[in-house]
Amino acid sequence: MASKAITNGIGVQVEDTKICVVMVGLPARGKSFIAQKAQRYLQWLSIPAQVFNVGNYRRSDAPQPTADFFDMNNTEGERKRRAAAEAAVADMLAWLRSGGVVGILDATNSTKERRKWVLDTCNGHGVEVLFVESKCDDEDLIMANVRDVKTTSPDYKGQDPEKAAQDFRNRIKMYEKIYETIGGDDSEEDEYTYLKLMDVSKQVIINRIQDYLQSRVVYYLMNLHIRPRSIWLSRDDRPLTVWTSTLKRTIATSRFLPSHYNQLQWKALDELDSGVCDGLTYQEIKDRYPDDFAARDEDKYNYRYRGGESYRDVVIRLEPIIMEVERGEDILIVTHQAVLRCIYAYFMKKDHTRSPWMNVPLHTLIKLTPKAYGTVEERWEANIPAVSTWRAKGSTAKHENPTPGSL
Amino acid sequence: MASKAITNGIGVQVEDTKICVVMVGLPARGKSFIAQKAQRYLQWLSIPAQVFNVGNYRRSDAPQPTADFFDMNNTEGERKRRAAAEAAVADMLAWLRSGGVVGILDATNSTKERRKWVLDTCNGHGVEVLFVESKCDDEDLIMANVRDVKTTSPDYKGQDPEKAAQDFRNRIKMYEKIYETIGGDDSEEDEYTYLKLMDVSKQVIINRIQDYLQSRVVYYLMNLHIRPRSIWLSRDDRPLTVWTSTLKRTIATSRFLPSHYNQLQWKALDELDSGVCDGLTYQEIKDRYPDDFAARDEDKYNYRYRGGESYRDVVIRLEPIIMEVERGEDILIVTHQAVLRCIYAYFMKKDHTRSPWMNVPLHTLIKLTPKAYGTVEERWEANIPAVSTWRAKGSTAKHENPTPGSL
Repeated sequence: MASKAITNGIGVQVEDTKICVVMVGLPARGKSFIAQKAQRYLQWLSIPAQVFNVGNYRRSDAPQPTADFFDMNNTEGERKRRAAAEAAVADMLAWLRSGGVVGILDATNSTKERRKWVLDTCNGHGVEVLFVESKCDDEDLIMANVRDVKTTSPDYKGQDPEKAAQDFRNRIKMYEKIYETIGGDDSEEDEYTYLKLMDVSKQVIINRIQDYLQSRVVYYLMNLHIRPRSIWLSRDDRPLTVWTSTLKRTIATSRFLPSHYNQLQWKALDELDSGVCDGLTYQEIKDRYPDDFAARDEDKYNYRYRGGESYRDVVIRLEPIIMEVERGEDILIVTHQAVLRCIYAYFMKKDHTRSPWMNVPLHTLIKLTPKAYGTVEERWEANIPAVSTWRAKGSTAKHENPTPGSL
Repeated sequence: MASKAITNGIGVQVEDTKICVVMVGLPARGKSFIAQKAQRYLQWLSIPAQVFNVGNYRRSDAPQPTADFFDMNNTEGERKRRAAAEAAVADMLAWLRSGGVVGILDATNSTKERRKWVLDTCNGHGVEVLFVESKCDDEDLIMANVRDVKTTSPDYKGQDPEKAAQDFRNRIKMYEKIYETIGGDDSEEDEYTYLKLMDVSKQVIINRIQDYLQSRVVYYLMNLHIRPRSIWLSRDDRPLTVWTSTLKRTIATSRFLPSHYNQLQWKALDELDSGVCDGLTYQEIKDRYPDDFAARDEDKYNYRYRGGESYRDVVIRLEPIIMEVERGEDILIVTHQAVLRCIYAYFMKKDHTRSPWMNVPLHTLIKLTPKAYGTVEERWEANIPAVSTWRAKGSTAKHENPTPGSL
């Protein structure tokens, strides 16, 4: 009997792969933004991923340090920062041992010495290392990040914004004194696996990528951009592209949109295929396939209809859509309940146990605007009565009116 | 009424995009290998792509030149080589005007001056330029390419192999004198869109990628490797991974394989979904849906079963499979007729009008071994009688025994 492996969301066997993604870069270079996006993407693909932010560990010891804490000649500061890195790495390795697959170490890791320590420690535990450096000399972008940090970072909570910004700029100067970019100097680092993003992916250097999971993470990160845009609904008069499925009801909806909107039909946006249950009501499914009905209630995300699809299958086929959304500008997507749940789950970081049970109201426009640390949602409802096809987990087979908490 | 665009094979709107992929590199760096692979991949995705090899144009003027023809002080040689490049670019632009999407200019393009000329000429015709440089200092790999060229290039046909190899090495030296790598020196080239592959993708540099189609080409090329391997059947005792669909009959087949073979189930390998026609014989389809039967005969590649899929749809969902095959080692794929036709079409470069009509015999193992300029095929047949489900285009609805030319 052949051994059997289950594919994960991107169709690759990852049981034996453990990766530590090690962020590298000066402060205010978007490292946390990249780390958070990578985690959300991998989680959405059912790959257990978690961010370990060294700053959070350091804050338990030094909650609101001034810039001189980060002076490399400050022995006490250096000791505490080192202890924070060690604690974060130790927790990450423990998490990888307990079933995690991609741990993301969010810190500056600005010297070759520090990176070698991270690499040796990970390799010693059978964990691959992928360094991801964000290098940026674009002053406008750095200043935008500085402004963002002074208002959002716990390091400056309750402080005068101007003083906070000045202190943060001083902190960056401390790091600049010792910062070494990764590789490119015939050193040991030329053998490392790394991705270097320069000026927000204007140029990308990819060094010694070793396996498929690494290549997926790299491809995703090189497609990220940070220009502001909205997804699903824009009331602007800017050119907007409308994506529909290949099914008649979404194409029909999009016929009523303004004529200057371009339309694109995607097979990948078609509704979840319910196989032999296609066209049946929940009551009919319960009567004819009681075991299936129960199995789907038990694990709706992984349950695959006989001859049809599971939510997990839908996520896999939606991956190119997400990749293109990440590359693209303003987009309006007209699609179906299960597909919308999967796309929504990506942007709003909903987990697999809850996203398939989410109520998706009809006649409602949802506008999603990605921001650095999450996605902002707005809704407009049209006042049109419609039949709900929603039911709560474990409920009777009747369709229900959703309760407020069900989304 | 909204304007409607048809998505191409990778789900992206390409009508307005015309790209010239400009190869850059010394002789014997695998440029033609990369160019051919890129063309095959794009064609398979229904994106019209064509290679324009400057050497072929030059040969009409200078069929078997010796190395001194390529000496940059040889004015007559320089004039002829320039004329060949101009003719190739002119033909490529004419082809792009007539509906082509990706033209691939296969030549050394070894100086900044030559590249600027190509860029300006293309941009003047509204064509984007993506430079792809293959840079390689691995002596073993270069010598393997030199050996390959001396036996396969028309430049050395009928000549003594040792003399040919020596002359070719001299030709490389001529180019080395003037060769300039792309970008990285704060020159105008830092603004170019380029992909630099170093030592067969050990390191990859990606500069200013502008749109989705470019990013797909780049992702494909960075996943190529040139280690020898076989696909579908290996009799070696090396570890072999078996890929099946999620359908019972392929899983059942693979149960009889040796137990040290790893198994992976892919939804993407499931059979073409024939929607309402699922489970019907060709005769039943003809009786119940005569218009559909005729429409499918007319254009089997694009015909989408009601509620089901077309061959084009299958190709789109197979793309991650192809990408992973290109990255991977020896693989055995156990799958279904239509899916196998699509995978076979990729490796054997079959066009869309013919591949859906290909006869795929049951109880047959096909071994495909990718080589630099094509794929070598071997077959083993088991002597088991089986019902054929094949019929020729335009034939009656009866299943037939295939004729020898139908594969």
